[in-house]
Amino acid sequence: MSRNRTTSDLLLELEGRPERLRRDRLLGALRDGIRSGRLDAGATLPSTRSLAADLGLSRGLVVDAYDQLVAEGYLVSRQGSGTRVADGIGRRAGRPSAPTPDPPARRWLVDFEPGNPDLAAFPRSTWARAVRAAAGELTDAELAYRDAEGDEVLRAELADYLGRVRGADCRAEDIRIVGGFTNGLGLLGRALWADGHSTVAVEDPGPYVQRDNLRAAGVAVVPVPVDGEGVRVDRLAASTADVVIVTPAHQYPTGAVLSPARRADVIDWVRAAPGRLIVEDDYDAEFRYDRSPIGSVQGLAPDRVVMGGSVSKSLLPSLGLGWLVVPPSATEPVTERIRTEHLRPSIFDQRALARLLSTGRYDRHIRTMRSAYQAKRDLLLEALAGVDGVEVAGVSAGLQLVAWLPTSTDVGAVAARAAADGVNVPDLARYRLHAGDPSQPARPGLVLGYAHLTPGQIVDGVAAIRAGLVAVGGC
Amino acid sequence: MSRNRTTSDLLLELEGRPERLRRDRLLGALRDGIRSGRLDAGATLPSTRSLAADLGLSRGLVVDAYDQLVAEGYLVSRQGSGTRVADGIGRRAGRPSAPTPDPPARRWLVDFEPGNPDLAAFPRSTWARAVRAAAGELTDAELAYRDAEGDEVLRAELADYLGRVRGADCRAEDIRIVGGFTNGLGLLGRALWADGHSTVAVEDPGPYVQRDNLRAAGVAVVPVPVDGEGVRVDRLAASTADVVIVTPAHQYPTGAVLSPARRADVIDWVRAAPGRLIVEDDYDAEFRYDRSPIGSVQGLAPDRVVMGGSVSKSLLPSLGLGWLVVPPSATEPVTERIRTEHLRPSIFDQRALARLLSTGRYDRHIRTMRSAYQAKRDLLLEALAGVDGVEVAGVSAGLQLVAWLPTSTDVGAVAARAAADGVNVPDLARYRLHAGDPSQPARPGLVLGYAHLTPGQIVDGVAAIRAGLVAVGGC
Repeated sequence: MSRNRTTSDLLLELEGRPERLRRDRLLGALRDGIRSGRLDAGATLPSTRSLAADLGLSRGLVVDAYDQLVAEGYLVSRQGSGTRVADGIGRRAGRPSAPTPDPPARRWLVDFEPGNPDLAAFPRSTWARAVRAAAGELTDAELAYRDAEGDEVLRAELADYLGRVRGADCRAEDIRIVGGFTNGLGLLGRALWADGHSTVAVEDPGPYVQRDNLRAAGVAVVPVPVDGEGVRVDRLAASTADVVIVTPAHQYPTGAVLSPARRADVIDWVRAAPGRLIVEDDYDAEFRYDRSPIGSVQGLAPDRVVMGGSVSKSLLPSLGLGWLVVPPSATEPVTERIRTEHLRPSIFDQRALARLLSTGRYDRHIRTMRSAYQAKRDLLLEALAGVDGVEVAGVSAGLQLVAWLPTSTDVGAVAARAAADGVNVPDLARYRLHAGDPSQPARPGLVLGYAHLTPGQIVDGVAAIRAGLVAVGGC
Repeated sequence: MSRNRTTSDLLLELEGRPERLRRDRLLGALRDGIRSGRLDAGATLPSTRSLAADLGLSRGLVVDAYDQLVAEGYLVSRQGSGTRVADGIGRRAGRPSAPTPDPPARRWLVDFEPGNPDLAAFPRSTWARAVRAAAGELTDAELAYRDAEGDEVLRAELADYLGRVRGADCRAEDIRIVGGFTNGLGLLGRALWADGHSTVAVEDPGPYVQRDNLRAAGVAVVPVPVDGEGVRVDRLAASTADVVIVTPAHQYPTGAVLSPARRADVIDWVRAAPGRLIVEDDYDAEFRYDRSPIGSVQGLAPDRVVMGGSVSKSLLPSLGLGWLVVPPSATEPVTERIRTEHLRPSIFDQRALARLLSTGRYDRHIRTMRSAYQAKRDLLLEALAGVDGVEVAGVSAGLQLVAWLPTSTDVGAVAARAAADGVNVPDLARYRLHAGDPSQPARPGLVLGYAHLTPGQIVDGVAAIRAGLVAVGGC
């Protein structure tokens, strides 16, 4: 290795750097030179004295840098043979170049993709104030590695809230804090059902992320169809499943409310054999427009229902904060799993949510958003009423509805036509898991999330759907 | 069922309640009565007219409450037969009484348990300000369901920080945000090694939570011994492992620094066969007292090392915030798994950390804490120097050290004697996974975490250790 090349490389790297950074820059330049192969493996470095002189640095600084890089494994120092570049580091032909980035997601003018609440309505300063208050209120001990159960204060507030608003029958000690419903579902899968003995039924159509999540957790999953009254309990009973995931308050994505008869049926089903369990995905129940929110199934059978919820729809998905109400039979394995996996949402966020609950700000935010979402829903219904052949469903609650299309409509063609206008209309078929009777063609439909849209977007979006239907002759 | 009993129960529940709560109270009283069995299954409820009159409520309110409870499954309404209590809800003999709570954890006067940083030194208001700034700075779109990669701004800051301070060779696109190192390790296990083809070696003695976490993830784990130079790479090479988890900067819990020769050996090992991987647990490297922090192993072989870190030692464990630097070969399965499991630390915390990094507050906090911890370490060393027979190790870095005790000391007896003085001294044996030669008795030792202790606690704690050693004749 040419001593001059090393030195001049290093001079270049160090040029114009403030003195206090020179040591770090020298380290960085040497590391980079070795990694890149510019300083060859086995090559002898200049003596500390001569490098110090060449670079205008103190000899102590260069000695220190060489020592550091020997300790880190970049250089090798042997008595009498000077300091050499270690083998095996620079051998890579440079690091792989950055992968071609995915094309940026298309910017839709109107995106009916469901899932997000109205992000612009998130009360940012209320949240920041709640975090500040939490930071002031938490004791030092509460800032330590925490109990796997989650913040006690939050769990007490949630028990009160869920009893009051969701008709749940739970105590603080039944609640575990997780990173959202889907996050908690994967945890349940690993804790309770990945043993090969359990089979978990999921609704079809339904939230496919749940199926993927459970399967990734090693859980056997079977789909069970839903109709206008919610999950088909007769089909559930005919399956091998001993666990069922349901969205009783507002089926996702069809919006069906689990009927009183089906509620009774699913409770009968869960009680018919030991070890059976219902998991209630209580994802948007607070947003009910025609009456009070329908109380949870958990309240009917707290010993047999895990009820999961989160702030993903009520506040923000990106808070990553949710809960599981766990029956006594499952508390221990769930807690143990949380402990083992170090699953622990920020204590500040947990306590901040507790404050929103205790001060009534959470309830007020829900009320405000319910009005806002209802107005958007009404506008969407009004607009869809002007589209021939469309039949809406699932409109009484939630942040999305279903627009059923005339039989044999080519949904893909409608969506493509709308996309040409910059409007994204999700095909209901995406949520199907194919539990239905294959001889019965699946009814074509669109899933229309509206919570995040402006009135103008709603009107424009429906116009694009209408144009799409006209173009494909679907109406 | 006696109609009068129902009515009087309900009157009792409603007494003194402000009007606006009466509907909710009526619902709650009816639900509770049905769940508890006080309102028997099948019993007919009073007519809405008579209950309204008895309770002094409007009939509309009672009709609404009955309707709600029919929808929820508590009541059944049949034409001509009035409203009855549904079957199957009250059949439970009440909910199980609350489990006897565990006895409260002992309050130690001095607790040498390692793991936590100095919680009292956490800059609460700086953090709260950073969260507020993050809340003001994030766009609406950034508040949506997020990319599985984590916040782009944080990842860019981390890439810069890890390159600058840890000698890492990474870009923002190599980094994934997780809930801490252990949390991320479980994720890696599920994403990469739970296929049955991989065997993961862990250090012995070592952090046993990692072993438990990996095993829970379905990963085959083998222990590999460590000595004063860190992990025994010869033993690793003789094992079936193709992955090794190492703590090169400061072995946990012995405090050994991976020597330059071992660094070269482990890099040779990882390059000797395709598919091998090193996972670097970079848990407390910033707290190095005698020299600059030793750069990461990741920088020597970025294509073969996953480097994990977190703010658990530098800021707080209860933030639940960490990162994985992932080589290109593993990026896709790791990202996919994060997406599937909805693993997503709070966006506010992510952006707040990014702000601490970009403003230099993070570096300043580390510097402040390094001085504070060094002073505590020095005091602990001074105190231990007065205890005959104790030999300290692992003192050059981190938040804990090891006190080796004379051969054949009964550590349990020393700990019991110290416990009688209110002092908790963790036995090193707890961290052993028994990879060592069974014919060689394991050297007795204590693991002493000091970062969270006051000077007085350090002095008192060492006095209790000395008393314990004297009592058992260990010195």
